Amino acid sequence: MKTYRDYDDLPKIKLPYGQEVSISDSTIRDGAQMPGIVVRSHHKVKIYEYLHRIGIEKLETFVYNERDRKAISLMQDMGYEFPEITGWARANPADIDMVLDVDGIEETGILMSVSDPHIFDKMGLPSREAAEEKYLEALQYAVDHGLRTRAHIEDMTRADNYNFVFPLIEKIIDIDPECTIRICDTIGYGVPFTGVDEPYGIPTIVRYLKEKINVKNIETHCHDDFGLAVPNSLAGYWHGANWSNVTFLGIGERSGNAEMEKLLLFLKRRIEGFDKYNLDCVAEFSRYMEKEIGIRIPRNKSVIGNNVFAHESGIHTAGVIKNPFTYEPYPPEIVGGKRNFLVGDSSGIEVLRFKVQETLNELMDVNIEIEKNDKRLRSIQADIQKLYNEDKRVSCISDEEILGYVKKYFMFNPMVRKEMHRDEDGEKEVKSEATPGIKPRMHDTID
Amino acid sequence: MKTYRDYDDLPKIKLPYGQEVSISDSTIRDGAQMPGIVVRSHHKVKIYEYLHRIGIEKLETFVYNERDRKAISLMQDMGYEFPEITGWARANPADIDMVLDVDGIEETGILMSVSDPHIFDKMGLPSREAAEEKYLEALQYAVDHGLRTRAHIEDMTRADNYNFVFPLIEKIIDIDPECTIRICDTIGYGVPFTGVDEPYGIPTIVRYLKEKINVKNIETHCHDDFGLAVPNSLAGYWHGANWSNVTFLGIGERSGNAEMEKLLLFLKRRIEGFDKYNLDCVAEFSRYMEKEIGIRIPRNKSVIGNNVFAHESGIHTAGVIKNPFTYEPYPPEIVGGKRNFLVGDSSGIEVLRFKVQETLNELMDVNIEIEKNDKRLRSIQADIQKLYNEDKRVSCISDEEILGYVKKYFMFNPMVRKEMHRDEDGEKEVKSEATPGIKPRMHDTID
Repeated sequence: MKTYRDYDDLPKIKLPYGQEVSISDSTIRDGAQMPGIVVRSHHKVKIYEYLHRIGIEKLETFVYNERDRKAISLMQDMGYEFPEITGWARANPADIDMVLDVDGIEETGILMSVSDPHIFDKMGLPSREAAEEKYLEALQYAVDHGLRTRAHIEDMTRADNYNFVFPLIEKIIDIDPECTIRICDTIGYGVPFTGVDEPYGIPTIVRYLKEKINVKNIETHCHDDFGLAVPNSLAGYWHGANWSNVTFLGIGERSGNAEMEKLLLFLKRRIEGFDKYNLDCVAEFSRYMEKEIGIRIPRNKSVIGNNVFAHESGIHTAGVIKNPFTYEPYPPEIVGGKRNFLVGDSSGIEVLRFKVQETLNELMDVNIEIEKNDKRLRSIQADIQKLYNEDKRVSCISDEEILGYVKKYFMFNPMVRKEMHRDEDGEKEVKSEATPGIKPRMHDTID
Repeated sequence: MKTYRDYDDLPKIKLPYGQEVSISDSTIRDGAQMPGIVVRSHHKVKIYEYLHRIGIEKLETFVYNERDRKAISLMQDMGYEFPEITGWARANPADIDMVLDVDGIEETGILMSVSDPHIFDKMGLPSREAAEEKYLEALQYAVDHGLRTRAHIEDMTRADNYNFVFPLIEKIIDIDPECTIRICDTIGYGVPFTGVDEPYGIPTIVRYLKEKINVKNIETHCHDDFGLAVPNSLAGYWHGANWSNVTFLGIGERSGNAEMEKLLLFLKRRIEGFDKYNLDCVAEFSRYMEKEIGIRIPRNKSVIGNNVFAHESGIHTAGVIKNPFTYEPYPPEIVGGKRNFLVGDSSGIEVLRFKVQETLNELMDVNIEIEKNDKRLRSIQADIQKLYNEDKRVSCISDEEILGYVKKYFMFNPMVRKEMHRDEDGEKEVKSEATPGIKPRMHDTID
C-alpha cells in the first residue's frame, strides 16, 4: 500500500538517461525580439541578475549594435561567474568577427537554417549544398578563431532530416566534436511523444543525434505555437539532451518560447536528486517583467500567476484550510509566492468562516474561534449570496468588505434575529427572514 | 528526398490507436470556479454559443442554485443539439436528485476523490473502504434513476492506483460498463511520457484502464500546475482515451486547466483525418472572454495572443513578406486571426520598406514599389534607430508615426541629401550625415 499524505511522500521521477541537465537563457535575445516590447540595457542587466540568483548556467545575446554591446559590458561589470555570456551570429565571418570583437565572450551560436522554405525562400540560396557549405565554413572560421560553438539548426522540425540535416550534423561534429547541437523547433511543430518520426518527433531526433551521431551536447529550443514548448523541452531531457534554451515567461517571437519557470519547477520538484536551482526570486522576477517590460500575466499562469495559490471555491478552500496538501501543488514559498483565500460567488461557508475569524481576531486583538453555524456568520453569507444571486456582482468580496460585515454583524449588532436551520453535513437549505429563499452554494469543489 | 514548402506538404500525424476523440467543456464549471472572476448567466449562454459554433460535443454544469439552473434553462432555450448539457454531483443521492430535477439532463459526473489527503483530510472519512462504498452507492443510485454516468476520479495522480483506484474502477465498470472514467489530474502531477509509472504517468494509467479493465470511455481532466495540462490531455488521446475535459483559455482553479484552443488547433492541424471542429470564431471568443470576464491574455499566448501572427524582427518579417510559411505555423484565418507587421527596435529594413510602401500607396492611391536602398527609406530607418539607440523609446513605431515619416521624407522632402553606402547583401554599415554612427540592426532573426 502506498500513502501520499505530504509532499515528502510523493516519489520523484528519474530522468531515463540520468544525465546532468542545464538551462541556457534566451530572454534577452529571442525574448527581446517579442513584437511589441522593448528590452532596454538596464532591463537586460536586471534580468541577468535574476538569472544569476536562480543559477542559470548560460545566456546568449546579440553583439550587433551599441545597445547590445553596452548591455554586455554592464552585465560583465556585475562580476558574476554565471550565467556565462555567449554570442549569436549568422553563418558568415563578418558576424563571427563581431562576436570575437567583444572581450570575454568565448562561445557563439551560429544560425544554420535547414528547412527548404528557409534555405530557398528566406535566404534565396540556390541549393541545400550551398547552405551546407556556408554553414560549415562559418563553423570552421569560429573554431579556427578559438570560439566554442553552438549550431542553431533552425526549423529542424520542418526539414528533411535523414537526407539533409543529419548528414550536415555529422559534418559539424567532425569539425567540432564539442559543438552543441541546438534543435530549433522554430515554428513549434515538434511533438513530445515517442513513436512520432522526424521531422516532428523530438524523442526521435534527440535519440538519433545521441545514438547514431554521438553528439555530446544536445540542446532544445522550442517555440509554443502549438502549446507544446515545455513538454518538447522536457522530452529533450527525457531522451538524452543535456540543455534546454528557454526564456522567462516564455517571451519571444509569436507565441514565444518554452517557459523557464515551468522547466525550473518541474526539475526542482519532480526530478530525483535535482536541486541546483533556487526559485525563491521567481515571483519577484515575474512582477519585474510585468511592471518594467509590460508582459501581461494572466491570473491562471502556472508558477507565477496570481491564482497559483489562490483559493475561492468551497471544498477547495475547506480542504486547504485543513491541509494545504489537499489542493496545492507545492508550498508557495518555493517560488516566493503566497497563499491567498478569496471569497467569491463559488465560495462555501468554510473560507468565509476563516476570513471572518481572521478579520475579527485582528480587529479585536483576540483569538476567538468562530463556529460554522454561528448565526452572524450565516447572515454575512446570506448577504454575500444575495449580491451574486442578483447577478450584478462581478468581483470577489474584498478584505475591506469583509471588515465591514464583521463590524456590522459582530460588533455593532452582536445578536441578529434570524431563524436558521441547517443539517449536520451542511448540505441543506439555510433560511433567513431577512433574505428569504437564499441558499448557500452546496457544491464548491473541483476535480 | 522530402520537401516541405507549403502547409499541404507537411505530413499529418496518426493517433496510434486511431480512435474517434471528442472534447467536453468545463469552462462554465471548473472555469467559473477560477478565483477572482465571476461568470454570470448571460456569459454562460454566450460561451455555450461559441462552444456550439466550434462543435464541442459536451459541457458540464452545476445545478445547485438558482443561477446555475437559470443558466441551464437559457442554454436549453437556444435549441442547439450540441454541446450536450450534463450535470455534476457529489457522491450522494441528494446531489444526484438535484441533477434529476433538471429537465433535459441525461448524464452526470459524480465526484469520487481517491487520494488519501482527499479521503482522510478533506472528507474526514474513516477509511478508503468507506469512500468506495459511498461512491459505488451514489453511482448505483444514478444508474437506477436512468442517468448516464461519469466517474470523476479526483486526484488520481497522487493516489494509490494499484491497491485502491484500479480495483474501484473495476467495480464502477461492473455497475455501469458505459461509465466514462475521468482521470482527474487534480493538482497537475500527471506526466505525459511513457515509462513513468502511476500515480503520475498518464500513458500508464490510460493503458491500464483500456487494456486491463476494458474501460470503453476514458477522459482526461488535467490541471496546469506544472505546465503540462495540454500534453497530458494529448497523451490521453495518444494512448487510447476518447475524451478530454478542458476549458477555454485554460481558466480554472489555480493555474487552471488544459487550454481548449490548443487542443483544438493540434487536432485540426496536426492529426490525420481530423476536421470536425470549426476554429474560425476562436479569436472572437477570446476577445469576448478578455472583455467580459476580465481574463488577461498575454501577447505571446498560443493560438489567441496578439502576437501569434505579429512579426517585428528583421529576417522574420523579411521571410514572412516573401512567404508566410517561413515563420508562420498556420494561416491566421484558421483561428480568425490576422497577420500584423510591427516596426520596433528589433526590426530590419524589409519590414520598414513594406510598411512605408503600403502607407505611401494608400496615401497617394498609387501602386509604387519602394527599393530597399531608397535613400528616403534609409533616412526613416536612421531616425527610428536613433530613437532606440537613445534607449528611451519603449514601444513600437505606430502606423501614425510611419505616416508622419512618409509625409516628411516622401512628400514634403522628396530628395534628402545623405551619403549612403551599403553592400549587396545588406549586412554592412549605413552612414548618414544627419545621424552619424547609427547602424541598422543586422541580426534580426530567430531560430
